Amino acid sequence: MSLIVQKFGGSSVRDAERVMNVARRVVDTYKAGNSVVVVVSAQGDTTDDLIEKAKEINPKASKREMDMLLSTGEQISIALLAMAIQTLGVNAVSLTGWQVGMKTDSKYGMARIKSIDGERIRNELDDNKIVIVAGFQGINKYDDITTLGRGGSDTTAVAIAAGLHADLCEIYTDVDGVYTTDPRIVPEARKLTEVSFDEMLELASLGANVLHNRSVEMAKKYNVNMSVRSSLNLNEGTYVKEESKVEKTLVRGVARDNDVARIAVCNLKDEPGIAFKIFSLLAKNGINVDIILQSIGREGFKDISFTVSESNAEKAEEILTAEKSYLGFEDIKISTNFSKVSIVGSGMVNNPGVASKMFEALYDANINIHMIATSEIKVSVLVNKDNADAAVKAIHDKFNLA
Amino acid sequence: MSLIVQKFGGSSVRDAERVMNVARRVVDTYKAGNSVVVVVSAQGDTTDDLIEKAKEINPKASKREMDMLLSTGEQISIALLAMAIQTLGVNAVSLTGWQVGMKTDSKYGMARIKSIDGERIRNELDDNKIVIVAGFQGINKYDDITTLGRGGSDTTAVAIAAGLHADLCEIYTDVDGVYTTDPRIVPEARKLTEVSFDEMLELASLGANVLHNRSVEMAKKYNVNMSVRSSLNLNEGTYVKEESKVEKTLVRGVARDNDVARIAVCNLKDEPGIAFKIFSLLAKNGINVDIILQSIGREGFKDISFTVSESNAEKAEEILTAEKSYLGFEDIKISTNFSKVSIVGSGMVNNPGVASKMFEALYDANINIHMIATSEIKVSVLVNKDNADAAVKAIHDKFNLA
Repeated sequence: MSLIVQKFGGSSVRDAERVMNVARRVVDTYKAGNSVVVVVSAQGDTTDDLIEKAKEINPKASKREMDMLLSTGEQISIALLAMAIQTLGVNAVSLTGWQVGMKTDSKYGMARIKSIDGERIRNELDDNKIVIVAGFQGINKYDDITTLGRGGSDTTAVAIAAGLHADLCEIYTDVDGVYTTDPRIVPEARKLTEVSFDEMLELASLGANVLHNRSVEMAKKYNVNMSVRSSLNLNEGTYVKEESKVEKTLVRGVARDNDVARIAVCNLKDEPGIAFKIFSLLAKNGINVDIILQSIGREGFKDISFTVSESNAEKAEEILTAEKSYLGFEDIKISTNFSKVSIVGSGMVNNPGVASKMFEALYDANINIHMIATSEIKVSVLVNKDNADAAVKAIHDKFNLA
Repeated sequence: MSLIVQKFGGSSVRDAERVMNVARRVVDTYKAGNSVVVVVSAQGDTTDDLIEKAKEINPKASKREMDMLLSTGEQISIALLAMAIQTLGVNAVSLTGWQVGMKTDSKYGMARIKSIDGERIRNELDDNKIVIVAGFQGINKYDDITTLGRGGSDTTAVAIAAGLHADLCEIYTDVDGVYTTDPRIVPEARKLTEVSFDEMLELASLGANVLHNRSVEMAKKYNVNMSVRSSLNLNEGTYVKEESKVEKTLVRGVARDNDVARIAVCNLKDEPGIAFKIFSLLAKNGINVDIILQSIGREGFKDISFTVSESNAEKAEEILTAEKSYLGFEDIKISTNFSKVSIVGSGMVNNPGVASKMFEALYDANINIHMIATSEIKVSVLVNKDNADAAVKAIHDKFNLA
C-alpha cells in the first residue's frame, strides 16, 4: 500500500462537474489500495475575483489582510471536494493549512514553508479517510494565515509528500506531461517518460512551465518522487525524480523562451570592476539577468551584453543610463527581437560534442547565433525571434527526439 | 474610554460601498476615543450561495464540511472590512473565530459557545487597532471549525462583550430599534428608549425579531448592556439591559405572531398522565409547543388545545393520530386561522388589572378571544387572523403606547 499525494489546480475544480471528476479520480486511487492526500487550489477564477473585491475597496490593502481574504478560495475547494467524495461512499475530511500545521515564515503573500506537522493528517489517514488539504496557505508564528505566492499549491503538495514520506506526489495539470519540446511548434514532440530534478529545473525556467521550480527544488531537496499528468485523461505522465545513475540522456528536450531582451553596453573601459558595477546596480533594482556575455571592443575597451525579460528592458536601460559617467560607457542598445532556444540533458556533462551538434543543426538551417551560454546540463543560444520555431525544429530533429 | 463591541449583519456589508459605510461608522466610534471590536456576518447572499454550491454537489453533505465551507463567508467580510478601515488611516486587524479562541461544543451547524480566550483581542486593542472578528463561527476540541447556527453573529458579539467586559454591545440592523409594536400595523408606534432583558426575550419570541433570543439570554446571563440601532442612520437605538429597579413599565409593547396553528385534541379521558403523554410525544419529535389549554369536556372527559407553528401543524396531528388508541381521544382538529397577540411588560407582575385591560380593549373592538395564556411579564391571546391588526391597534391605543 502506497501513500500518494495528488494535487489538482484551479481549472480542475472550477465547477461542480469538475469537482466530481476529481472526486472520482481520487476515490479510484484510494480503492486501488492507497492512502491518499489531495491538495487543491481555489476554484477557477475565485482568486482573481477576490483580488478584484479587495482592489475595489483598497488598492493598497495590507498583505496580511489579502492573505486572510485569498485563503478562503482554497477553503471553499477543499470543503466541496470532501462533500463530493462523500457522495461516492468514502469518508473524506478537509483541512486548512493551519489545521495541518503548515508552518511558514511571515512574508505575507509569498511565505516560505518552514515545517509541516504531519500528525493530524496521519491520524485521519489511519482512520481510513481521504484527506484533502488546502494548497497555497500556511500559518506563521503569530497564528496568522499566510499564502505561499506563485507555485504555492504545487509546493504544498511536495511539502506534504516530503513530510509524510509519501511514495509519490502527482501533479495534475492540463497537459499530459513534459514533452521533448512544445508540441505546438514540433507536432512530433514526444512525451518523456521521466526527467531528473535538475533537467526539470532547467526546462521549467526555460519556459516549459509545467511545474513551478519552487516545488521541483523542494522535491529534489527531500527526494520526493513526482509525476506530472493530465486531469483530463488516464495517461501515464512524466516522472520527475533523482537522475538515473546508470544511463543519462544526452539531450532530454528543447525549450524556447520568447520573453527575452538583449542589452548591449558598448565601449566600457577594459579594467577591473566594470562587470561588478553594472550587475550589482541591476540587482539592487530587482532586475534578473540571464545570459551575460563579455566581448572585446576596440583597443582598451570592451562590450558587455546581457539578457533580461522584455518587461525589464526599459527599466534596465534607464538604470544604467542614469549612471553613465560612473560606469563609463559610450553607448547602450536594447533589442527585443530575440528568442532563447535551449537544450537540456543531464548527460551532456561529459559530452562536449553535444553543444557543437546543436550549433551544427542551426548552421544547417541557416540560422545565425547571437549569443551562447552554457551550464552543466544546458546549452542556450539567442536567435532572431523569426527563426525561433525553425531553430527548435532543427535541433529536435538533429537529436532525434521525436 | 469605553470598550464597545459593534455587530453588523450581512446586508450592512453586502457590497464595497456598504463596507465603506460600516468602516466610516466604526472609525468614528474609534476616533471618539473608544476601543472598538467589530463583529461581521457574511456579505449579503454569500451564505446562501455557498449552500447552493454545496447542494449542487452533495445535498446530504456532512455538517462538518458545511461548517468548513460556510465559515469562508465571514472570513471574506472581515478581511474586506479591515482593508476598508485601513483606507481611512486607522490600523485594523481581522481575526477568525479560531484566532480569537472562540471555543464551542462539537455540534457542527449549531454549536454552542463554551468560552472565549480574550488574549489575542486584548493584545491587538492594546496596540490601538480596531479588531474585526468573524461572527457565526468558532472552534471545537478537535480543532475543527464550527458554525453557531441561527443568531450566531449576534451571539458572537455578546460573547465577546461578555468575555472582554465591554461597556456596550451595539447590534446594528435595518430598523431604528425596538418599537411598541410593528409600525407597519400601527404607524403611531413609538421607538422604546430601553427594554429589559426579559421584556426583550418575550418580545423576540413573539415575533419582534430584532435580536435573536440566544444573544439576549447570554447578555442577561453576563449582564452585557446591549443596544439595537440602525446601520442606515445615526439615531439612538433601544438599549437592552437589566431592568430598572426603580420603575417598571406596565406594558412595554404589543407583539403579533401570525405563524400559529391551534390543535384541539377532543374528549380525552379525564385522568392523570394524559397531558404528559401528549406533550412528551410531541417533544420527542422535536415539536415546540407554545400555549397549552386544558378545558373540561363532557362528564369524565377533557379537551386539550395547544398551539404550534404552522409548519409543524400537520406533523403534530400525524404524530398524535398515530397514537390515537394509546392516548385515547375521539377527535383532533387543526386550525391555522389564528394569530397570537401579546402584551409584554416587566411591570405587570404585580398588576392584575393589566390583563383585564387588554381583554377590555378587545371587547370594545368586538374581537373574540379564543385562547389566553399568561406568564410573569406577558399576556397572550389567540384571535382570528383577520382581527389581528385591529387587535394590535386597539390594545396599543388602550395602553397609550403611541
